[in-house]
Amino acid sequence: RIDGSRLWASLMETAAFGGTPAGGINRLTLSPEDGQVRDWFRAACEAAGLEVGVDALGTQYALRRGRDMSRKPIACGSHLDTQPTGGKFDGILGVLAGLEVMRSLDDAGIETEAPLLLVNWTNEEGSRFAPAMMASAAYAGEFTTEEILAKRDAAGISVAEALDAIGCRGPEPVGGREIGAFVELHIEQGPILEAEGKTIGVVEGGQGIAWFDGTVTGFESHAGTTPMPRRRDALLGLAELALAVERIACAHAPSAVATMGEAVIGAPSRNVVPGQIRFTLDLRDPRSETLDAMETALQEAAAEIGTRRNLAFQIERIWRKEPVPFDTKLVAAVDAAAEALGHSRRRIISGAGHDACNLAGRVPTTMIFVPCKDGVSHNESESATPADCAAGADVLLHTLLALANA
Amino acid sequence: RIDGSRLWASLMETAAFGGTPAGGINRLTLSPEDGQVRDWFRAACEAAGLEVGVDALGTQYALRRGRDMSRKPIACGSHLDTQPTGGKFDGILGVLAGLEVMRSLDDAGIETEAPLLLVNWTNEEGSRFAPAMMASAAYAGEFTTEEILAKRDAAGISVAEALDAIGCRGPEPVGGREIGAFVELHIEQGPILEAEGKTIGVVEGGQGIAWFDGTVTGFESHAGTTPMPRRRDALLGLAELALAVERIACAHAPSAVATMGEAVIGAPSRNVVPGQIRFTLDLRDPRSETLDAMETALQEAAAEIGTRRNLAFQIERIWRKEPVPFDTKLVAAVDAAAEALGHSRRRIISGAGHDACNLAGRVPTTMIFVPCKDGVSHNESESATPADCAAGADVLLHTLLALANA
Ligand SMILES: NC(=O)NCCC(=O)O
Ligand SMILES: NC(=O)NCCC(=O)O
Repeated sequence: RIDGSRLWASLMETAAFGGTPAGGINRLTLSPEDGQVRDWFRAACEAAGLEVGVDALGTQYALRRGRDMSRKPIACGSHLDTQPTGGKFDGILGVLAGLEVMRSLDDAGIETEAPLLLVNWTNEEGSRFAPAMMASAAYAGEFTTEEILAKRDAAGISVAEALDAIGCRGPEPVGGREIGAFVELHIEQGPILEAEGKTIGVVEGGQGIAWFDGTVTGFESHAGTTPMPRRRDALLGLAELALAVERIACAHAPSAVATMGEAVIGAPSRNVVPGQIRFTLDLRDPRSETLDAMETALQEAAAEIGTRRNLAFQIERIWRKEPVPFDTKLVAAVDAAAEALGHSRRRIISGAGHDACNLAGRVPTTMIFVPCKDGVSHNESESATPADCAAGADVLLHTLLALANA
Repeated sequence: RIDGSRLWASLMETAAFGGTPAGGINRLTLSPEDGQVRDWFRAACEAAGLEVGVDALGTQYALRRGRDMSRKPIACGSHLDTQPTGGKFDGILGVLAGLEVMRSLDDAGIETEAPLLLVNWTNEEGSRFAPAMMASAAYAGEFTTEEILAKRDAAGISVAEALDAIGCRGPEPVGGREIGAFVELHIEQGPILEAEGKTIGVVEGGQGIAWFDGTVTGFESHAGTTPMPRRRDALLGLAELALAVERIACAHAPSAVATMGEAVIGAPSRNVVPGQIRFTLDLRDPRSETLDAMETALQEAAAEIGTRRNLAFQIERIWRKEPVPFDTKLVAAVDAAAEALGHSRRRIISGAGHDACNLAGRVPTTMIFVPCKDGVSHNESESATPADCAAGADVLLHTLLALANA
């Protein structure tokens, strides 16, 4: 078993990097705070005797040697970046539990057959740079390194510039390391495990995700003199679209979800009818066909609103991640580890995207979920219990041992 | 008659201060660009032999002496600040036509009985600092100078700091100058004159205005894992409120208008359900009772949406300007001047707020409107013809002469 209080202490210690007054973390990928936690992580890994390498997208790899170095390493990990209103567990638990696994194996004097690898993937959150899970996608070959380096944040800064700004662009080619299997521990970020009183989620796959960038263009005019029927109010068009998108998701209840997360008026002024708005959309469902249907319905809704209100909608899909099934043997291995440890559990599909969903395209992969309070994530109040974190880390330890010694 | 081509040249010359590629002006009050046009204005007034003074809120007063200096000056003017997507005429025409009147009187060697006064009021637009028409309100005693100096823009900069930043805080006490009558020339900013083919709007008053600052608070949560029914999505609440406010205005058609001009998500991220949004509302109608009814309906709509969606709305009225009737004798004087000059005309109520609406609380006041293209204002494409601008300036000249020599 891992040392739960040492794991908890690591979680609380690193929460200082970008820690917010409300108890959350604001540690956008490749920010100075992300640089701080990366330095902490490298030092902690080296102190645990791991060999740390960094690839051209800043992803950190910490290797624990095995008896048979000809075998591909069995890997775990997640990400240390957060949302602007992020919590202390999303991603971080998976990385620090991996570190705790390495430390516990050292304490117990255990050497594995295959080597073990602990990974901190760059930009999982996708808040600063879209898409999410960027570096793991490049690892799996979904994007080239150059494509990713050229992505820009809202301020126009490229991934390449951001990497260099905090000095964390490494020499390793992205995807150059072979991995034998990948297991990611994560908080569920949803309400199911808590509601059913289960400790471990045995994750069978991840749902599909489609991201869109949109603009709606009307015409700026005077708030006091422009009669209501003559207005081409971009905000009213946006409002109708947001509500239409909610209806579209609810039409595929209970599985589908849809979110307008960003909306920025071009040149806002109290007494000007809004003329242009940029916005984003996020549609998800475990079935590809439902995603297709939602995309079609979205474009139809925008066209209808645009025609009726004399507004121009432009909505472009910038990313689509198909639903991902995880490796059935690995899923069974997690299930067996949880059973052996005596933890209550259920099969589950991930609502969030994870680096594991990208890894699955190249490497046998699965995930382990633990509950979080009220199912809340991407919120500063995100919370998980020390006991559940330790239980997840134990399942991770036993799954990795089983895979590395098989 | 005034010199229409000289007036037009002044309009085009000053349009360079804050001029935008799209042919508009972005010259927020007390910005560096506003400082530039103020310097230009002072120099032009002094070159025309006017005595320029500045009050503690930066308002510029240019005096042309009369035969009887014991009489209160007959004043005209407007404002030189613009919206972020402003045009070349809103406010500017009224100030530069006043300058043109002074120049034309000089050319013709005309001395008036009462002195004449040309005023450039600070912050008419209200885009950077709320409320609009700030300095003229202080002149009329609706606010103290200290209250106005303490108002802050979205970046937290106070009016006092902004005045000092461009060195335009003057020594005169606000409201210290007596004025005998005030006549403001302005583009209509609405579609009525153009639609009816009339050159001059004889303005009988201004409609009522109510401004609100609001926030809607929900709960940030994960866009992929939070089931639709569990969401407390601030943006969906805002969307419903925006559409409700549109319906409320339309329920008082055709007179009422309502606008949500600003809406800013607290910590926006593509994959976070929006948790908090700040917004503004602008309600207008020529009748106080309709404004009252709209305010009540607005709060009721917010309460209903908030309860249904488990969101907290807070909507505070930060300004209310009651409908203003102009001085009937001055209205008649404008009508007589337009008739004498042979211009087609109609009586009209102003949809926009104007410094004249504040002056009317202390001084006999009226306005003169000229048409603008498609009724468009607060837009970079705002446009008026040289002939209409000259016609308005002629009516201003003859009205001022009648008042100053009466
Ligand atoms: N796990 C997680 O929150 N990932 C961020 C990507 C997404 O699912 O939106
Ligand atoms: N004339 C004008 O556009 N004034 C700005 C104040 C307002 O009416 O919103």
